[in-house]
Amino acid sequence: MGSSGGEATAPSCDWGGAVETSAKRKRSKNNPSGRTRLHRFDRKSHKWSGVQKEAYKKPDGSWADVVRHTLIGGKGENTDFHMRYFEVAPGGMTSLESHQHEHVVVCIRGEGFCIVRKKEYALGFMDVIYIPPGAPHQLRNKGKKPFGFFCIVDAERDRPVLLKDKKL
Amino acid sequence: MGSSGGEATAPSCDWGGAVETSAKRKRSKNNPSGRTRLHRFDRKSHKWSGVQKEAYKKPDGSWADVVRHTLIGGKGENTDFHMRYFEVAPGGMTSLESHQHEHVVVCIRGEGFCIVRKKEYALGFMDVIYIPPGAPHQLRNKGKKPFGFFCIVDAERDRPVLLKDKKL
Repeated sequence: MGSSGGEATAPSCDWGGAVETSAKRKRSKNNPSGRTRLHRFDRKSHKWSGVQKEAYKKPDGSWADVVRHTLIGGKGENTDFHMRYFEVAPGGMTSLESHQHEHVVVCIRGEGFCIVRKKEYALGFMDVIYIPPGAPHQLRNKGKKPFGFFCIVDAERDRPVLLKDKKL
Repeated sequence: MGSSGGEATAPSCDWGGAVETSAKRKRSKNNPSGRTRLHRFDRKSHKWSGVQKEAYKKPDGSWADVVRHTLIGGKGENTDFHMRYFEVAPGGMTSLESHQHEHVVVCIRGEGFCIVRKKEYALGFMDVIYIPPGAPHQLRNKGKKPFGFFCIVDAERDRPVLLKDKKL
């Protein structure tokens, strides 16, 4: 597995669902009526209050054993960014993909690998990696414990393109 | 201390320095030549490679014992957001301030308090708080250990207004 998705646009659950249009967001800018929101973290379950586990994407053979928690995005915020937490189980991997929007990844649980172009970066606790526009990338867990990371992206972003290994 | 700054715009080192104009960012969008950047975290020093400690703001009596590390922002990224790490020493506090841009705060070290409007939220490891537009807020460390948190903001944002306690 890991890269058998061919070269297709990613399913809408990864891309379109949480994205707001510029016009929509601009209309709601400067709205002081928003409510403070606290997501309390539970170390035991490694979950946040008020945040549900979601599917990473629709199953398409390009990824395995990944779940998503959307902390910021699609909940009435006006932020120009979204913050998600992804957790990759042992042996799992995200899609090998490319897009013009950048990723900021912060490892907060376990250890994993971030492949960017042809290079592999080992990530441990609190390591921060910036993935530039257009760089093929994939996150992998080769270990025996869960690998979890925040991934922060622009709220308005282009649709990922799935790649085959040879496109790295 | 904590709120003696009156009602003035924040010093430019907090606001203007790292902010890029929309036009500038749009020009550099879709530039695939960007480089991957890894900031390795060191648990002992609680610092990231390639990231320098900065002053939080110019001293103005409105804050105490806060340092800043800019992880994402002002380094050639095209992101619509910036990510900073702030650390508040025991007894320290950020400015009591208000602005239209939102804050996303993630506590990653120690414990502290986030005051939003008239409410105080205790923050521990990995708790995430969303501070809505226009809400007066302040981060405080009442404990005996450092209190550290990520603060993620829009790259384009309005200038904070310092407030007195009575404005809460």
